[in-house]
Amino acid sequence: MSKKLWGGAFQKKSNSVVDDFTASISFDRRLAMYDIEGSIAHVKMLAKCRIIKVKEGNTIVKGLKEIANEIDRLQPDEDIHLSIEKCLHKKIGDVAGKLHTARSRNDQVALDMRLFLRDEIAVILDLLNRMEKSILDLAEKNLGVVMPGFTHLQHAQPVLFSHHIMSYFFMLERDKRRLQNSLEEVDCLPLGAGALAGTTLPVDRNFLARTLNFSKVSEHSMDAVSDRDFVLEFLSAAAILIMHLSRLSEEFVIWASPEFDFIEIDETVLTGSSMMPQKKNPDVAELIRGKSGRVYGNLMNMLTVMKGLPLSYNRDMQEDKEPLFDTVDTLKSCLGVYPVFLKAVSLNVERLAILAGEGFTTATDLAEYLVTEGVPFRKAHETVGKLVLYCMKNGKEFADLSAEDFRLFGFSPNVRKFLKPEVSVKRRKLISPREVSRLIEKARETVSHKRIKN
Amino acid sequence: MSKKLWGGAFQKKSNSVVDDFTASISFDRRLAMYDIEGSIAHVKMLAKCRIIKVKEGNTIVKGLKEIANEIDRLQPDEDIHLSIEKCLHKKIGDVAGKLHTARSRNDQVALDMRLFLRDEIAVILDLLNRMEKSILDLAEKNLGVVMPGFTHLQHAQPVLFSHHIMSYFFMLERDKRRLQNSLEEVDCLPLGAGALAGTTLPVDRNFLARTLNFSKVSEHSMDAVSDRDFVLEFLSAAAILIMHLSRLSEEFVIWASPEFDFIEIDETVLTGSSMMPQKKNPDVAELIRGKSGRVYGNLMNMLTVMKGLPLSYNRDMQEDKEPLFDTVDTLKSCLGVYPVFLKAVSLNVERLAILAGEGFTTATDLAEYLVTEGVPFRKAHETVGKLVLYCMKNGKEFADLSAEDFRLFGFSPNVRKFLKPEVSVKRRKLISPREVSRLIEKARETVSHKRIKN
Amino acid sequence: MSKKLWGGAFQKKSNSVVDDFTASISFDRRLAMYDIEGSIAHVKMLAKCRIIKVKEGNTIVKGLKEIANEIDRLQPDEDIHLSIEKCLHKKIGDVAGKLHTARSRNDQVALDMRLFLRDEIAVILDLLNRMEKSILDLAEKNLGVVMPGFTHLQHAQPVLFSHHIMSYFFMLERDKRRLQNSLEEVDCLPLGAGALAGTTLPVDRNFLARTLNFSKVSEHSMDAVSDRDFVLEFLSAAAILIMHLSRLSEEFVIWASPEFDFIEIDETVLTGSSMMPQKKNPDVAELIRGKSGRVYGNLMNMLTVMKGLPLSYNRDMQEDKEPLFDTVDTLKSCLGVYPVFLKAVSLNVERLAILAGEGFTTATDLAEYLVTEGVPFRKAHETVGKLVLYCMKNGKEFADLSAEDFRLFGFSPNVRKFLKPEVSVKRRKLISPREVSRLIEKARETVSHKRIKN
Amino acid sequence: MSKKLWGGAFQKKSNSVVDDFTASISFDRRLAMYDIEGSIAHVKMLAKCRIIKVKEGNTIVKGLKEIANEIDRLQPDEDIHLSIEKCLHKKIGDVAGKLHTARSRNDQVALDMRLFLRDEIAVILDLLNRMEKSILDLAEKNLGVVMPGFTHLQHAQPVLFSHHIMSYFFMLERDKRRLQNSLEEVDCLPLGAGALAGTTLPVDRNFLARTLNFSKVSEHSMDAVSDRDFVLEFLSAAAILIMHLSRLSEEFVIWASPEFDFIEIDETVLTGSSMMPQKKNPDVAELIRGKSGRVYGNLMNMLTVMKGLPLSYNRDMQEDKEPLFDTVDTLKSCLGVYPVFLKAVSLNVERLAILAGEGFTTATDLAEYLVTEGVPFRKAHETVGKLVLYCMKNGKEFADLSAEDFRLFGFSPNVRKFLKPEVSVKRRKLISPREVSRLIEKARETVSHKRIKN
Repeated sequence: MSKKLWGGAFQKKSNSVVDDFTASISFDRRLAMYDIEGSIAHVKMLAKCRIIKVKEGNTIVKGLKEIANEIDRLQPDEDIHLSIEKCLHKKIGDVAGKLHTARSRNDQVALDMRLFLRDEIAVILDLLNRMEKSILDLAEKNLGVVMPGFTHLQHAQPVLFSHHIMSYFFMLERDKRRLQNSLEEVDCLPLGAGALAGTTLPVDRNFLARTLNFSKVSEHSMDAVSDRDFVLEFLSAAAILIMHLSRLSEEFVIWASPEFDFIEIDETVLTGSSMMPQKKNPDVAELIRGKSGRVYGNLMNMLTVMKGLPLSYNRDMQEDKEPLFDTVDTLKSCLGVYPVFLKAVSLNVERLAILAGEGFTTATDLAEYLVTEGVPFRKAHETVGKLVLYCMKNGKEFADLSAEDFRLFGFSPNVRKFLKPEVSVKRRKLISPREVSRLIEKARETVSHKRIKN
Repeated sequence: MSKKLWGGAFQKKSNSVVDDFTASISFDRRLAMYDIEGSIAHVKMLAKCRIIKVKEGNTIVKGLKEIANEIDRLQPDEDIHLSIEKCLHKKIGDVAGKLHTARSRNDQVALDMRLFLRDEIAVILDLLNRMEKSILDLAEKNLGVVMPGFTHLQHAQPVLFSHHIMSYFFMLERDKRRLQNSLEEVDCLPLGAGALAGTTLPVDRNFLARTLNFSKVSEHSMDAVSDRDFVLEFLSAAAILIMHLSRLSEEFVIWASPEFDFIEIDETVLTGSSMMPQKKNPDVAELIRGKSGRVYGNLMNMLTVMKGLPLSYNRDMQEDKEPLFDTVDTLKSCLGVYPVFLKAVSLNVERLAILAGEGFTTATDLAEYLVTEGVPFRKAHETVGKLVLYCMKNGKEFADLSAEDFRLFGFSPNVRKFLKPEVSVKRRKLISPREVSRLIEKARETVSHKRIKN
Repeated sequence: MSKKLWGGAFQKKSNSVVDDFTASISFDRRLAMYDIEGSIAHVKMLAKCRIIKVKEGNTIVKGLKEIANEIDRLQPDEDIHLSIEKCLHKKIGDVAGKLHTARSRNDQVALDMRLFLRDEIAVILDLLNRMEKSILDLAEKNLGVVMPGFTHLQHAQPVLFSHHIMSYFFMLERDKRRLQNSLEEVDCLPLGAGALAGTTLPVDRNFLARTLNFSKVSEHSMDAVSDRDFVLEFLSAAAILIMHLSRLSEEFVIWASPEFDFIEIDETVLTGSSMMPQKKNPDVAELIRGKSGRVYGNLMNMLTVMKGLPLSYNRDMQEDKEPLFDTVDTLKSCLGVYPVFLKAVSLNVERLAILAGEGFTTATDLAEYLVTEGVPFRKAHETVGKLVLYCMKNGKEFADLSAEDFRLFGFSPNVRKFLKPEVSVKRRKLISPREVSRLIEKARETVSHKRIKN
Repeated sequence: MSKKLWGGAFQKKSNSVVDDFTASISFDRRLAMYDIEGSIAHVKMLAKCRIIKVKEGNTIVKGLKEIANEIDRLQPDEDIHLSIEKCLHKKIGDVAGKLHTARSRNDQVALDMRLFLRDEIAVILDLLNRMEKSILDLAEKNLGVVMPGFTHLQHAQPVLFSHHIMSYFFMLERDKRRLQNSLEEVDCLPLGAGALAGTTLPVDRNFLARTLNFSKVSEHSMDAVSDRDFVLEFLSAAAILIMHLSRLSEEFVIWASPEFDFIEIDETVLTGSSMMPQKKNPDVAELIRGKSGRVYGNLMNMLTVMKGLPLSYNRDMQEDKEPLFDTVDTLKSCLGVYPVFLKAVSLNVERLAILAGEGFTTATDLAEYLVTEGVPFRKAHETVGKLVLYCMKNGKEFADLSAEDFRLFGFSPNVRKFLKPEVSVKRRKLISPREVSRLIEKARETVSHKRIKN
């Protein structure tokens, strides 16, 4: 066996600078167990199809399993595939050379990537479920807490904190759906495509699919080795997911500021300063917000790699691994830490309640009251606008206005009962405590009963 | 009615530089018909729910329909929503002020965007179908044409041209699936969410959903106005789609070069040079390849916009429109022109056939032959490698080798019958003419029978 | 003259779908005046070099000037270059056909883009200067106002507002430097490169450079037509610039929130809500923050376009225009509106002063006091940390501590004089009122005296 | 000393999940030597300014130097700064606690990043110089070789190979200029800025700058700790640079295809296939082309991180390191391997010469000949177009035309002497062998004499 397993037609030793530059073992080592899993299935298929002898198959499988058991001691070669094959050769001799029959690294690595991603998406879905539970816990723990709802970071209308935070539950639900969709994309066996154009040997791809638990077999050999849509679709879903987390994190950073002072965060998840003795910073939220950068960057990376590549396999595609691995790791660590962070958050309930009523947050209720009296909304909007202006000029909130004030602007004095944030929240059906409770309960069921299909 | 429809609480006239800067009418005008469609449904709902009088509702609907009929003459205001409302006021007077009851521009624009995108995705799916048909036509027209299959832009193994080009059919099938998924995401009614927190008025969102043909109603009001996942999911699918087109285009550019000379392109789709009289360039393919840039850029644009935005609506989100519109237009124009281009392509069949056999493209067949003789593949690979080396040193192709030559390297001379590209292609089941025909036929059915759900 | 100016070798009429798809007139029309300016210089050069007759040259120049005067009525053809040439032909007949001698659209469009960008960068530099002045005005107007300095959006140490806001002056200074660098990149004449390989005719490129006010002539013809570094370098500088604006905008959005309440913004630059009568939103700041998306996207667009393009000109490069135009327009509008916005901002001075002292912002001063007593900083940091903890447990700020309290933690009671924010700010030389005034004064000079070189 | 060096005000132990999530030691360890270099300068300054005692300073410096000598055995803590400080404490006891006087990790890490990048840019500039030399070697080795020049990957006009390849020299020259510019941006001392607002202690920043070899001192403390322009400017320059390499790589991939067959590549830099025994692939060029993805992605990463961050330091900014490190490593490895690859390239001179004349590449010369006869270029263009058409219909190249043929189209028969590629190349001054030699010679001087300033 020559040094390079592919070196038969080569006369000269390859340049070591080039060897180092093209080697992928430093990162694709991570695929080792999937590579072995794929190889075991492949060898069983070869034996079943009489392409190799059953006994040979058994020897190879046994050797591969041994390697799996000693994977940390694997001697690195240019990539994980050849590292394993060489190790196998050391263990079982020339019969190892039968492993790669009817297979190319092109379909092999496509398989490894799919096996890897299939597992990792399942893990991420599970972590999403846990994070959803944490959100539900936080929502439930604070049922009934009123706070100012914001648009443009200005007070808009009173809402329930539980309502506000439930927004993120719905975002994550969409993330789960997108990840499920990308899982379906992943779930397709590429093995058997060979380098790009199959093999003359009588392989059984359906056997492979069953053994490796794929529900579909790739129908097109060139597509099978040159397609990375499954990576891109996952990276896209990940980009949208981390965007959601960046929004939530931004909110926590803002809420934790002394000016907002909406929340207390337990100091076990805060971090100090090397210079300023008093500091307790929400670094976790900041870091997650910042990690949107790398997930976006990884998506752009892979889109760039694939742009304009002619068929079929090109070595550019080796660059698919690191952005995928990094995205998987980032999602897992962010989703792993977030429940810990959420658990450490408690609300400054009284402050929130007071603020909920400040800034004329019930102005819309007043305008809608006029609507019920038959005033066109646009006119009602203007009238309330003028009332707000009157208040601002006189340094008053709605609550400070007299019955006479209201009458002057055309309101029946009994509108004053609508001006409490709690009342305002109750009167809007879609966001009322009852509705929010219903949503939480329904969400709780979703989270509890949903089994992640893998 | 004040100049600004929202100006009741304002005392001063807004700065005109600011007015110009914040105005969106130059691009959101494109949503006019969707805005009117949404408003008509909204008004009918208001009337049905007795929030306004039936007669008022009728007056408003009639006014809106008139505006729709004269849409090109619409007087621009800061955005399309206020342009239409002001125009309505001119037509029907103060009752126009009832249109915006229980509604905010926040849920209104989310609705408009969804109505717009729902239509456009349907159009794009239809164009994808047409492009798939063009690919099938090209594949069918050239059934049986052998060409060199490539990896690393080097000759790898002989394949059928029809097989090669069918790769793109499968890519587009995945694009269609992704677009269908994003259509499901789009298919959710946001109206009724109000500015962020619903309304005190007794609206009927299910009526709205039925009228506007949505199968789901957004469950969360803050999410409804601050969610742009449906835009992002579409933009992601679009980025992968244009990547596919960039790959196909790269191939046409390469194939059309005088050195490759794989294809002839009818001059009706080629372009000349202002300086060089002889030039006939494949500009269409180049431009489509280049347009990957804008589609990627639009995705990155929108991901950046949404990064770190606190809930709920923020004006940053006005920036969602132009990248979406540009992506829609780009996909439509690229998919619209591609069938014209594909139809203009014909193959240099003989040249392809000759090249299919050059570069030792059947080396793998030889190695697999040895496998059938019991030689471990890795050993067989090395042996054939040495045979290739022997040929190269002696300036021969496999076809030039004698029976004796083969015997020397351990081959039975009857391997020579495997060395014809046509034979090689037939012997590999997955890419054989029979299989390719089957794939095309199946694909034809997919394309013919698939009804685009809208 | 055939329909297509490049159609001599073509027999068939081009497909109209293709014509529409490849046409660039809808956006490159914007380059019309630069195209004419370049053409006039080119014709003068041709005449000077006796490639055409002086009289012919004069006729063409006169025709071009006429077109310039009537530019709005220009009949569109496939691109701006041919539109103008055809119009010229209508005006002066066949001698118009001499205009394009020794020139290709490839070097012509590279020239137009450089002329355009040279002008626009000058405009942007001027706008940056104006915005810097506005920042200086704001800093000067509020000299002496103390506020809490932030890290992690937590109170860190007291600073001057003028100091804080001056950060942005320094960012913009760097932006100016980067734009100046990109202007140098732009300042290089491509004309004379022809399609890719010059001309056999005796052109004088130095004459062209002088006439068109370029200080350098491109040394390499293929590079001249296939280089878009000058676009990319500008887009990169623009991306960093808009990032700076996004940070400033984020601060204004946060400061304008009722919870922060750091600033008042004059309502002339605020915007209302269509539903909520009380709303006054800082939309300008939000929109600018959001516009980072398009500028980033445009950069990514163009990087993608250029990736992997073989030499020399490829039609993909036509895609350079729209991202460049959009970036130029975005910078100009954001920089144009920002001074208006800044002028509308006033500070809530008293509130800022109070907050400056809250949150133990002088903890570091205390630790540094201990350092002057010989305590290792790390020990001092810990001691003050414990003091903070003591305060928090007892609901006190530093100001509430007694001399005895301080003594208990190892402080001389006279540290209490260091605890005023004003004192703290004065004692830190780098950020003291004196230093900030000096910086502003120096900056004022920079802004006043700096002449934008064009 | 507490476990956390910043933990004085904390009562509870931090959550270990949070510790792991926020730790940066796994990647910022790379900055260790720069951190020590900065700390040594800082300590010397503290001693010089009498903030600590000279003897203490000496002890600390000695300890730091010891740590530098044993850097591989450094015990990891949360980040490199605290790892070193803790190690120092173990070595020299409590006096170690004086190291961090008048300093924060915020200015410290900004310093480390600048020291790191300053060194790495110098290395990259040197590698660029080497690569330029390799290009010049290749250009010089092949002086006089004619090849077809391309636009749209179609034959355009004959050029010299040396001319073509010199395009990349000019691209790299611009890259060097951009990197020099970013080096100037890097060359600014941030230390002394403290956490964001300086220190009350009498530090001497000019001493620091001199000691650490910075030519400028950051003028603004908040800017100093929250600015990452120097990273972004480098990443932008890197993105343009890798784009250049992706173009060159694309050309090599195309040229190495059997259809183009422009070049031979020595097999020492080629790579084989695991399945196909005959394959010799230009993986190096493909990988470099693909690596554009990660460099673009890293830029987008960091732009996203910085978008919308309020002042001053936020933990998001810890995310600056990995994209920077990865970009540095990618540039260094690509630039390191490219000269090896270039050296392995040889030209198929005869084939290039033949192709240089195919495809009517001298059509423009013919048109320009007519121009010298007084024919308007546009007319000349059309005439030659028709001549080309005539040739194509009759299966002829220009060389096959008779004197009569030429006369028929209005040419003097002596135009035939212009039709040789060699002649065509000579007649175009800008790209003539003489000019190309001059350019190479001048470039050689640039490369030899230019000293990289560091």
